[in-house]
Amino acid sequence: MKRYWDAPVWIALGMLACVGIAGHAQTAPAARAQTMAEVLAASRPSDWHVLDPAYTLYLELASGRVVIELAPAFAPNHVANIEVLTREKYFDGLAFLRSQDNYVVQWGDPNGDDEKKRRSVGTAARTLKAEFSIPTGDKLKFTALPDRDGYAPQTGFSGDFPAARDPKSATAWLTHCYGTVGVGRDNDADSGGGTELYVVIGGARWLDRNITVAGRVVKGMELLSTLPRGTGALGFYENAEQDVPIESIRVAADVPVAERTNLEVLRTDTPTFMALIESRRNRHDDWYKVPAGYIDVCSVPIPVRTVGATKP
Amino acid sequence: MKRYWDAPVWIALGMLACVGIAGHAQTAPAARAQTMAEVLAASRPSDWHVLDPAYTLYLELASGRVVIELAPAFAPNHVANIEVLTREKYFDGLAFLRSQDNYVVQWGDPNGDDEKKRRSVGTAARTLKAEFSIPTGDKLKFTALPDRDGYAPQTGFSGDFPAARDPKSATAWLTHCYGTVGVGRDNDADSGGGTELYVVIGGARWLDRNITVAGRVVKGMELLSTLPRGTGALGFYENAEQDVPIESIRVAADVPVAERTNLEVLRTDTPTFMALIESRRNRHDDWYKVPAGYIDVCSVPIPVRTVGATKP
Repeated sequence: MKRYWDAPVWIALGMLACVGIAGHAQTAPAARAQTMAEVLAASRPSDWHVLDPAYTLYLELASGRVVIELAPAFAPNHVANIEVLTREKYFDGLAFLRSQDNYVVQWGDPNGDDEKKRRSVGTAARTLKAEFSIPTGDKLKFTALPDRDGYAPQTGFSGDFPAARDPKSATAWLTHCYGTVGVGRDNDADSGGGTELYVVIGGARWLDRNITVAGRVVKGMELLSTLPRGTGALGFYENAEQDVPIESIRVAADVPVAERTNLEVLRTDTPTFMALIESRRNRHDDWYKVPAGYIDVCSVPIPVRTVGATKP
Repeated sequence: MKRYWDAPVWIALGMLACVGIAGHAQTAPAARAQTMAEVLAASRPSDWHVLDPAYTLYLELASGRVVIELAPAFAPNHVANIEVLTREKYFDGLAFLRSQDNYVVQWGDPNGDDEKKRRSVGTAARTLKAEFSIPTGDKLKFTALPDRDGYAPQTGFSGDFPAARDPKSATAWLTHCYGTVGVGRDNDADSGGGTELYVVIGGARWLDRNITVAGRVVKGMELLSTLPRGTGALGFYENAEQDVPIESIRVAADVPVAERTNLEVLRTDTPTFMALIESRRNRHDDWYKVPAGYIDVCSVPIPVRTVGATKP
């Protein structure tokens, strides 16, 4: 399964809109097809932006650090509440309680269902009004994918996040892709608040607009995706010894500069990112025989690298 | 994230064809929407078929048994070759060499690149002509999904497998979904033969029609999806101590009856399976607020249970 780029295939980036069915859409020469590695190698420093420490969380496990970028543009109240919980050390010493194969891992208070034993939320709220989607308004930046999506009228990227929007209702929301961080809730739409969070480790697009998405994992997914699967219903661990402890969660801005993980993300509103999308829609290295002519929103990587690195 | 079914929503199963955009397609009352659990509970014994031991492999790891169903209808030559390799114990003592997060795990001969050291393939072939797709002919059973797909003109199910077909070229192929087992190859399309196999643990639809699919994992995926990720390029383990040994692979038919894992699979050419698809396209339990009105081929579970069990 080696992959090399070779064949000088010519494609027209701007003319690929709405090609939703597999088959290589070839129209007029415009730019040489590139591999993702080539796109990134040719990127300029201005194509990248540094993660905002004020909206970055470090989830510390015995196995290492997971870095989460929060999404205040899409879930302002939940993000603010999660930051209060974090700063008041609500999460420290809690644990991953659930690991359901090809779906989600989830952390929270092992005593969360027991009102007498559960941890206090301090000055935070235990529940909040749902933030399943936002009005797009006039200002929402959105880089649309050229391809049709099944779960939403349109998909693409907003800020550092895979997203969807509906022109009819003038709303937008974050899509459930690998690494998406969401807010667990009970049946009531407004029953979540951030005390229990999950991370998608499989497919879960059907959760879109059914739950508040608060961010995404930008580094350390492999620490979560390999957590032993729970054998109870919905992948919950059946006894407390199986729970995977959380040492702490911190807002990056509160961590000494020397201890931070300094990451930058490829901007999704750039020609470089558009070239990256095309490099994934149609792969032209020697290994591939049939370019897909399509990419779904969850299959487009949003590159992250150490600040100033020349390779991701 | 509890899920209960409650709301008595009425839907028309037969009238949902080609509804590809999110939004609950509600037309005329025909059948009460069911949850997947209800669909399975109402299934009849004839809705299920027992896995054919002649085309079932047991991959034995220290952590347990992985059960693989082979796909002779789609890759007859590769399946036959893999069975020769298996029966001549080619795989016994080899190892998983690769674990790439959100993509694939892969096993083979650690010395596979060294022509002098690599294991003999015995009476099997080392390479075969690619079997990326098959002619649909008149006989291929195919249960089409009502929804549009991006990567293929049409998706659905053939036998026990997620699949796609193209009416224009009159071809069909197996889609790369979670659990798909494929035949590793080098750049040459005809350079694979089954000595190195991979299992999809993430998204990989762009591999469709680029590689021979030989089967799918029907039980034990969690043993593979949690393998430690390799830190080398493409997720290969960087040193031999990290390799995950394979104790043996056996054709189920060659295993004493008392030691077999007796499984049956829900037939995909039944009204029960159509009801299952609908139960996943639109979830109507109390937890869900916005039914997706859509399902992609990789998100439809193909239920497997112990023979004669009343629950999966």
